[in-house]
Amino acid sequence: MSVELSNRGEGPASNGELHDDVSEGNLDTKRLLTPRRRQTGGYEEIAMDIGRPSPDGTALLLESMSHEIMRLRVATGGLAIFAVLATFVAIGLAITRWDASAPPPVGRSPCFDNSIYQDYGPIAKQIISVATSGPSFGDEIHKRLEKLCFTFGPRFSGTDALNSAIDWVAEEMTLDGLEKVHKEAVANISNWKRNEEWVYMLQPRLLELPMLGLGGSVAGNVQGQLIAVADWDELHLRADEVAGKIVLFNVPFTTYSETVQYRYRGAIEAGRLGAIGALLRSVSSFSMGNPHTGATRYEEGTQPIPFAAIAVEAADLIQGLLGTGQAVEVHLQMTAQTEAPAQAFNVMGQVTGGMTPDEVVVLGGHIDSWDVGLGAMDDGAGLLVCWHAVRLIHTLGLRPRRTIRVVGWANEEQGRVNGVLGADVYAAKHRDERHVLAIESDSGAFNPLGFTYLGPDSALRTMQALSGTLLGALNATQVVNGTGTGADVLPMYETQGTPALELLTDATRYFWYHHSVADTPDKMDPDELARCAATLAVIAYTVADLEQPLYIPR
Amino acid sequence: MSVELSNRGEGPASNGELHDDVSEGNLDTKRLLTPRRRQTGGYEEIAMDIGRPSPDGTALLLESMSHEIMRLRVATGGLAIFAVLATFVAIGLAITRWDASAPPPVGRSPCFDNSIYQDYGPIAKQIISVATSGPSFGDEIHKRLEKLCFTFGPRFSGTDALNSAIDWVAEEMTLDGLEKVHKEAVANISNWKRNEEWVYMLQPRLLELPMLGLGGSVAGNVQGQLIAVADWDELHLRADEVAGKIVLFNVPFTTYSETVQYRYRGAIEAGRLGAIGALLRSVSSFSMGNPHTGATRYEEGTQPIPFAAIAVEAADLIQGLLGTGQAVEVHLQMTAQTEAPAQAFNVMGQVTGGMTPDEVVVLGGHIDSWDVGLGAMDDGAGLLVCWHAVRLIHTLGLRPRRTIRVVGWANEEQGRVNGVLGADVYAAKHRDERHVLAIESDSGAFNPLGFTYLGPDSALRTMQALSGTLLGALNATQVVNGTGTGADVLPMYETQGTPALELLTDATRYFWYHHSVADTPDKMDPDELARCAATLAVIAYTVADLEQPLYIPR
Ligand SMILES: [Zn+2]
Ligand SMILES: [Zn+2]
Repeated sequence: MSVELSNRGEGPASNGELHDDVSEGNLDTKRLLTPRRRQTGGYEEIAMDIGRPSPDGTALLLESMSHEIMRLRVATGGLAIFAVLATFVAIGLAITRWDASAPPPVGRSPCFDNSIYQDYGPIAKQIISVATSGPSFGDEIHKRLEKLCFTFGPRFSGTDALNSAIDWVAEEMTLDGLEKVHKEAVANISNWKRNEEWVYMLQPRLLELPMLGLGGSVAGNVQGQLIAVADWDELHLRADEVAGKIVLFNVPFTTYSETVQYRYRGAIEAGRLGAIGALLRSVSSFSMGNPHTGATRYEEGTQPIPFAAIAVEAADLIQGLLGTGQAVEVHLQMTAQTEAPAQAFNVMGQVTGGMTPDEVVVLGGHIDSWDVGLGAMDDGAGLLVCWHAVRLIHTLGLRPRRTIRVVGWANEEQGRVNGVLGADVYAAKHRDERHVLAIESDSGAFNPLGFTYLGPDSALRTMQALSGTLLGALNATQVVNGTGTGADVLPMYETQGTPALELLTDATRYFWYHHSVADTPDKMDPDELARCAATLAVIAYTVADLEQPLYIPR
Repeated sequence: MSVELSNRGEGPASNGELHDDVSEGNLDTKRLLTPRRRQTGGYEEIAMDIGRPSPDGTALLLESMSHEIMRLRVATGGLAIFAVLATFVAIGLAITRWDASAPPPVGRSPCFDNSIYQDYGPIAKQIISVATSGPSFGDEIHKRLEKLCFTFGPRFSGTDALNSAIDWVAEEMTLDGLEKVHKEAVANISNWKRNEEWVYMLQPRLLELPMLGLGGSVAGNVQGQLIAVADWDELHLRADEVAGKIVLFNVPFTTYSETVQYRYRGAIEAGRLGAIGALLRSVSSFSMGNPHTGATRYEEGTQPIPFAAIAVEAADLIQGLLGTGQAVEVHLQMTAQTEAPAQAFNVMGQVTGGMTPDEVVVLGGHIDSWDVGLGAMDDGAGLLVCWHAVRLIHTLGLRPRRTIRVVGWANEEQGRVNGVLGADVYAAKHRDERHVLAIESDSGAFNPLGFTYLGPDSALRTMQALSGTLLGALNATQVVNGTGTGADVLPMYETQGTPALELLTDATRYFWYHHSVADTPDKMDPDELARCAATLAVIAYTVADLEQPLYIPR
């Protein structure tokens, strides 16, 4: 364990100049500093399709503004960040007692381990103090989240907005002083365009229903009687009634993994029975009229039919009408297109390990989002708390044995369903590095409770001891095994057997906002963001620094 | 106090036949049983304006279905309701101990009054037991709420849907056995049509913003730079910058009465300074992308400018962009029209007083709603809990000294702002009756806490004693003075000095849903509806039966 009380590690200077090392490492970094014209996102495409003003007039102004902003940022950003970080360090030093023999906190976890406490208690305490003493650190994260969301809009795969946001992340990581900041190209990512779409109920009265087409759906213009089913069983019991109709999967939300099966397979199963289209009760635990999109798929040999989510309230209305014996007729229009696969990037930076830099603790979230809302919760905040965990480690001048790398992964939302998963590309490209731990934050960066875990039992016990010993002050000591893991750490588990953690938080409201217009920065709390970053920093640092590796990759 | 343990009062039989007395009492009741073609509401108008399918094809089918439904309802409804109510009575009898000398509940209110408890404790206990023992009563109310909302859609002033809903309420009240069920015409009600409307942000990037024009706004098609102000002070400090621009009132929600001033007066104040249009951060305490409409107004001598609410998230985005020095340009299109004043109705039924029938306790909510959502919380549920309070009193065979009347008031949403308030018409028409108490439920029929109060101090003390003595079992003993009252009971207070109560509930989520697409039946809880009805029934019955009147009207 090496602790350097300087504000600078051995990486690039964080003095406000863009450092050379951003242009090394791969073919794509030469584009890193080139501002691009931001392109129309989801809203814009819809707008243009219904004959509203075109964005062409804005491109030039935008480009000149973005040059100007970058010039100013380069000139002033580094200095300001240096000042803020110096303050953090000062606060941390003032608060932290460097006494490894101080008594452990009361109310300790059953997994509390005294030797871990001896080795890492003071550092954990310092990390937590710096992150959570006062609002500054959380406010910094939240301000960056707003900047990411407001400046670029939704970061949908296949849009220039996404690639501009990726460039911005790389620039900001560089300004933070992270090392080896670069992008890695991901080809063949999803390029589905929503375009114009709507659903009208025609009978028993005319009503436009709040809806969002599902990502990957084909276009279609279908009108017909509606049949509502509550589950697969009811669909198959009533198989005779389906042909020529539009099926509503009015499935109440139970858990995401259970309910989302209807989003993945609804068009396949309904199409197989001769339905002309399908609607889905939005996969959501609470609704205020906001429909929720998400990826869907087709299978060879079944006729692809258009498939859209409607708001929970609209599904209730239809069920209420059907329940009184009234026929319900709807007209579904979708003009979605799947265009030629696009290119995006995984973007990353690190604190390079002081002893075994090819052993890596990787953590991150996905940089892409859906085309509605602003991708604040899913997964802007997830990426930001991972990034700021690494930033915090850098700022504190910590240099662990192994490398700690933050990655913004590409195309999580549609990857493996209708395109390449950025994290698969990462795992392949980095197969020569030994990943001792992979951590994802994509379940909402709300108040942290610990982690869910997928991996070998030996590493599980170590994780439980580390969390139980070091995260008591944050009440984030849970390590929950057997509930699966996130999409972006799964490839490391699959290729190297790397233990996979997903940040576990109080995600009560996660499926309120998920994949909808409600996913905006106001939903995320600065204090909770800071606590997430602290949780991640403690675990990433200690696992990167343990004398015995948590796991020996295969 | 007279208690009749029969299932029938002296009113019309509740045996499933429509009784003659629905066609007496005023000129409008002859239309009571005439089903009407339900008309297009807000959604439909927008739909038609953008060239979507027209509703014409649905009218005939609809009419024939609505005839059929009414036929079936008349044939079977009364019988079913009779059975349900008989069950209530049985449950009530089984549970209630008719022993006035039983010890009062523990944890009594400081306002507990032993003589009130002697006189009305058993009845209050019975009412509460019947309403809240088991789910049936709450489920009945909630089912009727769904029926009202799903069948007719939004009940916007000026639509045939509203008048069809009013007819349905009268029919159902009749089936319930309420007495003197009838409608009273309200002329000159608001007739504003939303039509097509949208807002696009043009700079710094093209984005459609979730919006709803404000009721009463003029049409307009304006494009310009946006200036955001946080309050009136900032508007006037920056008065020089306003001319030719569009003003965004980005006022954070504090209380409704405070924040709503910007909705009422925003177009006036911005227009006076030469603004070409105005936008309002939705008056809402929590948002999921749903904009909130509501009434606005103009003043003589200022140029009327178009005025629309945008979603809270959109206001945050604009503020975020302005905060980084970027100019924001928007294009606001509204094609709203104020048509010739329409006619609607106050609809009412009662339990006629056994001794002084011209002394009245009136309670109710408004039957109209905004043109978005389904008016479930505002104020379908409010009317329903008042109605079911009276139904409960009737079912229990109670016959108080004075009359208890439930009213569904017309045109509350726009009344006195841009049209006649139905409750003003009620107060004028019923000025010869002496109203001893007026109770409104229009603050969300959530878990009841008591009432807010406006009126003389003597009646306040009596109300505190009644609530403190009789509503302890519901934890609804609060009587809060000095916070104003609702629009529909104010006319009685103004004309007769009648004490005015507004049902006070745990309305934490009220301004989440208010005047938005999120106002749908799923937001209301059957148990809470039952508790509201019980609270209202206890107070309405006892005040109607007190030997000394609560208040002697002037
Ligand atoms: Zn995600
Ligand atoms: Zn209301």
